[in-house]
Amino acid sequence: MVTPMDPTALGFLLAENRRMPMHVGGLQLFEPPPDAGEDYVREMYQQMRATDEVAPLFRKRPYRSVKTGGQYVWIDDDEFDIDYHVRHNALPQPGRPRELMELVSHLHSTRMARERPLWEWHLIEGLRDGRVAMYAKLHHALVDGVSANRLLQSVLTTDPDQRGMPAPWAARPRARAARAQEQAERSLASLPLSVLRQALGVAVDAAGLPKALYTTLSRSLRNQTSALALYAPRTILNQKITGARRFAAQDWPVERLRAIGKASGTTINDVVLAMCSGAMRDYLLALDELPETSLISMVPVGLRAKESQVASAEGGNAVGSVMVQLGTQLADPLDRLQAVHRSMRDGKEALASMTPMQILAMSALGQVPAVLPTMLKLGGVPKPPYNLIISNVPGPRVTHYFNGARLVGNYPLSIPIDGMALNITCTSYDGRMDFGLTGCRRSVPHLQRILTHLDDALVELEQAVGV
Amino acid sequence: MVTPMDPTALGFLLAENRRMPMHVGGLQLFEPPPDAGEDYVREMYQQMRATDEVAPLFRKRPYRSVKTGGQYVWIDDDEFDIDYHVRHNALPQPGRPRELMELVSHLHSTRMARERPLWEWHLIEGLRDGRVAMYAKLHHALVDGVSANRLLQSVLTTDPDQRGMPAPWAARPRARAARAQEQAERSLASLPLSVLRQALGVAVDAAGLPKALYTTLSRSLRNQTSALALYAPRTILNQKITGARRFAAQDWPVERLRAIGKASGTTINDVVLAMCSGAMRDYLLALDELPETSLISMVPVGLRAKESQVASAEGGNAVGSVMVQLGTQLADPLDRLQAVHRSMRDGKEALASMTPMQILAMSALGQVPAVLPTMLKLGGVPKPPYNLIISNVPGPRVTHYFNGARLVGNYPLSIPIDGMALNITCTSYDGRMDFGLTGCRRSVPHLQRILTHLDDALVELEQAVGV
Repeated sequence: MVTPMDPTALGFLLAENRRMPMHVGGLQLFEPPPDAGEDYVREMYQQMRATDEVAPLFRKRPYRSVKTGGQYVWIDDDEFDIDYHVRHNALPQPGRPRELMELVSHLHSTRMARERPLWEWHLIEGLRDGRVAMYAKLHHALVDGVSANRLLQSVLTTDPDQRGMPAPWAARPRARAARAQEQAERSLASLPLSVLRQALGVAVDAAGLPKALYTTLSRSLRNQTSALALYAPRTILNQKITGARRFAAQDWPVERLRAIGKASGTTINDVVLAMCSGAMRDYLLALDELPETSLISMVPVGLRAKESQVASAEGGNAVGSVMVQLGTQLADPLDRLQAVHRSMRDGKEALASMTPMQILAMSALGQVPAVLPTMLKLGGVPKPPYNLIISNVPGPRVTHYFNGARLVGNYPLSIPIDGMALNITCTSYDGRMDFGLTGCRRSVPHLQRILTHLDDALVELEQAVGV
Repeated sequence: MVTPMDPTALGFLLAENRRMPMHVGGLQLFEPPPDAGEDYVREMYQQMRATDEVAPLFRKRPYRSVKTGGQYVWIDDDEFDIDYHVRHNALPQPGRPRELMELVSHLHSTRMARERPLWEWHLIEGLRDGRVAMYAKLHHALVDGVSANRLLQSVLTTDPDQRGMPAPWAARPRARAARAQEQAERSLASLPLSVLRQALGVAVDAAGLPKALYTTLSRSLRNQTSALALYAPRTILNQKITGARRFAAQDWPVERLRAIGKASGTTINDVVLAMCSGAMRDYLLALDELPETSLISMVPVGLRAKESQVASAEGGNAVGSVMVQLGTQLADPLDRLQAVHRSMRDGKEALASMTPMQILAMSALGQVPAVLPTMLKLGGVPKPPYNLIISNVPGPRVTHYFNGARLVGNYPLSIPIDGMALNITCTSYDGRMDFGLTGCRRSVPHLQRILTHLDDALVELEQAVGV
């Protein structure tokens, strides 16, 4: 079965190289159920790989030949081998979170072979606290980050006693997972890029697409001042990257963030950004690399359908983006929080006043952050438009389970690119705010130290507002 | 640094596809020294990856562009990342040999990305008996199987107290490892293919090479009857393969094989082949797939330099090959042993009487078994020239150590190809005969059962000759 490839998916394939693999990831931590036996993980693995029928999304692979005119299309992999995609891993001793992060960093570093469907799923045992990890790797040409997260969640349940649950890649007619799979496909196909393409009548052509987009973006962005501070300082985060990745993850109680927001008249999202601001300030100070002017973060924000005019009928992932001044030049944590709050508010107001075409352009920048700068060659400009990307994606609020195993952590992995070596993605789950930091291992030295700085920043904010 | 690529290396790259990755492997088992602490494996890993300078053989990668006329050349990888190549793995519980074989089978299944140097090295902990495994993966375009084995051995020592030993990939002027690295490069470059090419004046041309070779081979082989029984029965081993591999390994005391040889007037190599014969008979019988006529095994044999006229000055890997009738149609183990012995003796005599050109052709078939049938499209013919490949490569006779860890097992992994789904490679070490079976997971079902059949065959032979 041959299906055409959406230009957005094509863009991710064309933008990819060994230094910039274009896949997103998800790390999930589970506590096995009380009745789990010695063979619990092995049995789970056997059950997952014994999937009868694999959904089309997970069977298709990119293909091009003379017959397809040299263009990429999707074809069904007629030699599909589940054992290539679903793997059982273990951690070296002593099985600390550190060993888990090392393994996941490594798995997230390697580019996927295009001769096979573009996904991997790893079951990981050997954590000394008895927890079990799952790392999922999905190419951005298959799904976007939000859909990937939704897909992984779609197979979970709130019922701790439910068993016999299917894998995310199982074909399941009329089930929630099937809908999530469909939406993932549709959501990618309905991304701003393709809307833009239609709006502009751009030919589906790898060469023409970036130029047309660039023109549109430039035109839209020139009129913006408050929301679009395209003059970020140059930092170590904004250089050419290597193919090696480092991933670090940690979570904090949402309640602590909410208390700070309440006491200071800011939102939880503002507090997340202020934590990142304080952490990046401390991190860059320690490296003697803090710029004199504020770091600017690109922050994707949700748009209501009537604002965006690009939301799909299913209420898909229409997002715009705001360029937030993080206030990293300010020594006082409260000053930073207020700077973030103001910048975010101004940005959202500006977004609300933008024309649909401007929102489309912004949406493109927000929705496909990983590929656009590459395609627009923004990575090579002396002044980066922003210094890093911080996303905050809402997740489920109540405890979820997979075959009786309790989900206790859910950390997103993202895509660093040239000129944008660090990506922070947060997702809330069950009263915790889970932070996932994905960076180039060489450009962002000692990335894991940012976790300590995040913790310090949270404590500082609490002290500053007196909670 | 750009260096031209030898046509043999090129042949392996061109013959490779996702179903037929063209890398060899080695699995080594070590017992840690008595003074090994808790962090022994981690420290070994850190020491290995901290290699100051990596030898050229391990830094080069294939490259082609318009500038190279679309032809592959070797270039030095200027973004070389040791962490991509040297990895620290662990086995899932319970850490039996079975889990090790599963991991190694998986690692051996995946094709290496050409955008990087074509090798990987995995340190594997988590065996429940406390042993440590190393799995090395080297593309056949870099080294041939014999050189790979020699390379891995070159860093070992007979001194249990020696420490601070370098990794196989470390650049070491004038050391044994450096010589092994050089020989590996030269040995591949001096393989019969290139000699043939020179002898025949064949253009270095992917399209022309197979045809010229085919003509030469056909001409040489037509005159042979005893050594070259190119009429093997069709079996399940001789079909199209998939990209999934299964590896199984086990060892037996050489003394047991020697005793059988002594009592029956045969060689240790004959006994190895008779074990394989008995095992394949039982294995195929159980599957109701035993052909009425004898299985034929291609067996590479060493040639003295004056016979081969192709040996390098260093006494390299000049080998010819003999087509051995395994006698699998015979129910009596002693009949099979004698059939193997006669067939081997006749084959060697025929080899001795061959012209240099015929030996060259045979050598090509023996030296590069993995690539030739593919290039000659022998894999597609209704009658395969032989049913499987059984190699027996002599290894070190005394105990060897790596940084105090005692080498207790050394198992080669080889390359199944279309029409040749199973490869058995043996190597002797420290009084043991180590068998490594590499097969296509789908074409050779329950491959690991052949180990039991090998053990049964050995016992049968002992009973038959009364030792």
